[in-house]
Amino acid sequence: MNQKEIYHALTAIVGEDDVTIDPVELLAYSLDASQLKAVPVAVVRPENKEEMSEILKFADENKIPVTPRGAGTSTAGQSIAYNNGILIDLVKMDKILDLNLKDRVVVVQPGVIYGELNKELRKHGYCFPPDPGSAIACTVGGMVGNNASGVRALKYGATVDHVLGLEMVLPGGKIIRTGGRVWKSSSGYNLTRLLVGSEGTLGVFTEIILKITPAPQYTALIMPVFEKFDQGLEAATEIINTGILPSAMEILDDLCLMVMNSILEEKLPQAGAVLFIEVDGNNEEAVKEGAEMVRNICEKVGVKEIIHSTDPERTEELWNLRHTLANLLAKIRGEKMAISSIMDFAVPISQVPEAVKEIKALAAKEQRLMAALGHIGDGNVHFGSAINVEDPKEREAATKFSREAAEIIIKKYDGTITAEHGLGQAKSHLVTLEHGDTLELMRGIKRVFDPNNIMNPMVMGLTEIPKDEYVYMPGAE
Amino acid sequence: MNQKEIYHALTAIVGEDDVTIDPVELLAYSLDASQLKAVPVAVVRPENKEEMSEILKFADENKIPVTPRGAGTSTAGQSIAYNNGILIDLVKMDKILDLNLKDRVVVVQPGVIYGELNKELRKHGYCFPPDPGSAIACTVGGMVGNNASGVRALKYGATVDHVLGLEMVLPGGKIIRTGGRVWKSSSGYNLTRLLVGSEGTLGVFTEIILKITPAPQYTALIMPVFEKFDQGLEAATEIINTGILPSAMEILDDLCLMVMNSILEEKLPQAGAVLFIEVDGNNEEAVKEGAEMVRNICEKVGVKEIIHSTDPERTEELWNLRHTLANLLAKIRGEKMAISSIMDFAVPISQVPEAVKEIKALAAKEQRLMAALGHIGDGNVHFGSAINVEDPKEREAATKFSREAAEIIIKKYDGTITAEHGLGQAKSHLVTLEHGDTLELMRGIKRVFDPNNIMNPMVMGLTEIPKDEYVYMPGAE
Repeated sequence: MNQKEIYHALTAIVGEDDVTIDPVELLAYSLDASQLKAVPVAVVRPENKEEMSEILKFADENKIPVTPRGAGTSTAGQSIAYNNGILIDLVKMDKILDLNLKDRVVVVQPGVIYGELNKELRKHGYCFPPDPGSAIACTVGGMVGNNASGVRALKYGATVDHVLGLEMVLPGGKIIRTGGRVWKSSSGYNLTRLLVGSEGTLGVFTEIILKITPAPQYTALIMPVFEKFDQGLEAATEIINTGILPSAMEILDDLCLMVMNSILEEKLPQAGAVLFIEVDGNNEEAVKEGAEMVRNICEKVGVKEIIHSTDPERTEELWNLRHTLANLLAKIRGEKMAISSIMDFAVPISQVPEAVKEIKALAAKEQRLMAALGHIGDGNVHFGSAINVEDPKEREAATKFSREAAEIIIKKYDGTITAEHGLGQAKSHLVTLEHGDTLELMRGIKRVFDPNNIMNPMVMGLTEIPKDEYVYMPGAE
Repeated sequence: MNQKEIYHALTAIVGEDDVTIDPVELLAYSLDASQLKAVPVAVVRPENKEEMSEILKFADENKIPVTPRGAGTSTAGQSIAYNNGILIDLVKMDKILDLNLKDRVVVVQPGVIYGELNKELRKHGYCFPPDPGSAIACTVGGMVGNNASGVRALKYGATVDHVLGLEMVLPGGKIIRTGGRVWKSSSGYNLTRLLVGSEGTLGVFTEIILKITPAPQYTALIMPVFEKFDQGLEAATEIINTGILPSAMEILDDLCLMVMNSILEEKLPQAGAVLFIEVDGNNEEAVKEGAEMVRNICEKVGVKEIIHSTDPERTEELWNLRHTLANLLAKIRGEKMAISSIMDFAVPISQVPEAVKEIKALAAKEQRLMAALGHIGDGNVHFGSAINVEDPKEREAATKFSREAAEIIIKKYDGTITAEHGLGQAKSHLVTLEHGDTLELMRGIKRVFDPNNIMNPMVMGLTEIPKDEYVYMPGAE
């Protein structure tokens, strides 16, 4: 089927305004936040589940690959199409359908922006806590598709811990519902939690039921500054070991601080490590006590200074500094062409210090400038570097490095290659390393939902695809 | 294949001591806590995954149905065999393999008793919180198989919220691992959370990795006594609406209190409703404040009296009264032959008062003595009655009633027919009512894991089986 025929079929479903085949626009849709690229044959913007059903019926009948896309903030090529596949942009399905405080649920369409949803929830004293780095841009549908999380997953869990139910359109057009508004169920297979994190490979969400969380009334941010990076690791480990459960615990190393201080207006102390530790709760005394315990541990480890904020505005400013970091890493080498490449490992808590040191040592040995940062409290540490994507040698070396690092993380430390970003297209080649025999079960499940394999077939290593069929930029994992 | 051949094959794997075909012993294994009954062809007690693998290889090759069994406390026929199937008793796989406080995980075999595990964890200041009614007897494997929960699910979640990884033997004998010790992952389909609650239909667990929770240092139990049942509902709803998150909130109605007071030595006030509300935490002040807020709400609603305990021993005594209840319900009618039949509905929180009143009214209309009790905080209310299982008319009426009630719960209140007990064999006939189109997907998933359909084929409505092939006791849902 050629592009024109696809165009006509899609316009018959959603109208001309909501189908794009203009080459320039398609090029804009060919990217996400990874360095992968694939130009879709058409972009379609359905408004409701009925249109979604017709689109997936058409695509399935004609075996045209389909990729759903939220805000395109995915970092591993989850939301770019298979070349010549249809991209479904969820931008018009951005409504909050029902906020029910008594049920403590909110029902949303997948295109709702996370930050916007949280603004609305906070008006009523509630929140949806995972808080990914892309909070102001990413969609709830994308978060559910990738089981996204972020700084507050330590205390509040990842997206999967908040999804009660889903409405999804299957390839072929059938509309199913899983779960609902009940808080717990033991009835049948837990399809909801299977679908969370399925990266658009099983169908397209059209409705998401989230359990909302009472927003904490009191918050304290403690930012200990350590001379040495290892002291930061030690303090973080000690805090978890004592049984304190901060709402967030982040680490930034010297490279992170250097690049932030060279660019941002507000400067943080230049040091071996700065932690962002947040304690929250609904009892002021308890939050004070938690903060005090954190400070005591940091002092025992030997802190240089501690930045401390209980003022909500100041705390938000400090957090905003942290959130700029992912984009700034590209500037580590000060080069224009460089882009940031961020690995997303997690290891068991006891293994964090050793695993982080080993990856840092590996980078040093190969003379790679590599920053360590991220959610150290739950064992999810990012390693960021800058890559000149125009240089094939550099890309090749980056791929080799990320594979070596992934092998260490999985085989030596019993870790995962992606704690919150998803596998996407970029990490497909690492899938057997982590999943071994279970990959066949995953492929079997995909066949149950999607017998013609039209749903986002390039991601998660679920399909064997000849390398030359797509544009693969190996620096991007 | 006849019983003797099966016996010889199994003894070749595990030795003679660990295979049973003695008719009297088999009869003892033909029951669980439901009123269903099915006599296995043989019972086998493997000791490790290698033996488990050989058993499942043998069963698969010979297409003999297999049912795994923990303590047999399942209430819906999950852990009794298909007639002439093999029952795998996990009693010999009862080891705690690794308690790692730094990783905050415990690795156990499936046959570990929940209560025993928690005793061990509490020595170190940790716990595995779901706390089902059968806590002192049930196994962790059974809890994972059924996604069990209990009084503390309100704050701490069901079993699924605590399982990080699994080792499982597939039919055919392959041993797979899902998840691990990492606290979060977005890598591939979340098979772990699909397997939790799969009721032995996809394989047999041989290792379970649980995230453990710091045990709270302070606890307050508040037991308001209300003249009217509706006041109990009102107080419970109001507590949830104000954003307090008790660790437990239970309700008992007048019938529950009557049967308890007629049998137990310690008497509770005879009233329309008694709530058990527990507030916990690591800050004494915060727990006091929470308890105070709960008391204030109860007083506003109009409480008769409040029993209050912050003494751990006394609190445990009071909880023990609550835990006796499931078994006492059989005595509602004071007849010897009666057994207790407990329904396990959950509805969205806002619907709890109306749904509970409607089911109670339906029971009253049909002159059924029916007690309401259970986890009102998370919307999971049990309805208990006593049935004379020797009377076919009574059984028929009970089945009709439970179907009517299930229809109301699902269609009118968007609820689930089982919040924590599982579907088992008893609720198989209600499956399409709740799951509709997704049942086909579940059946597809079963085929991926278990192409010969040997794994616990009678449960969850996954297999169409002629009614006369098994003994069905319809009072048991």
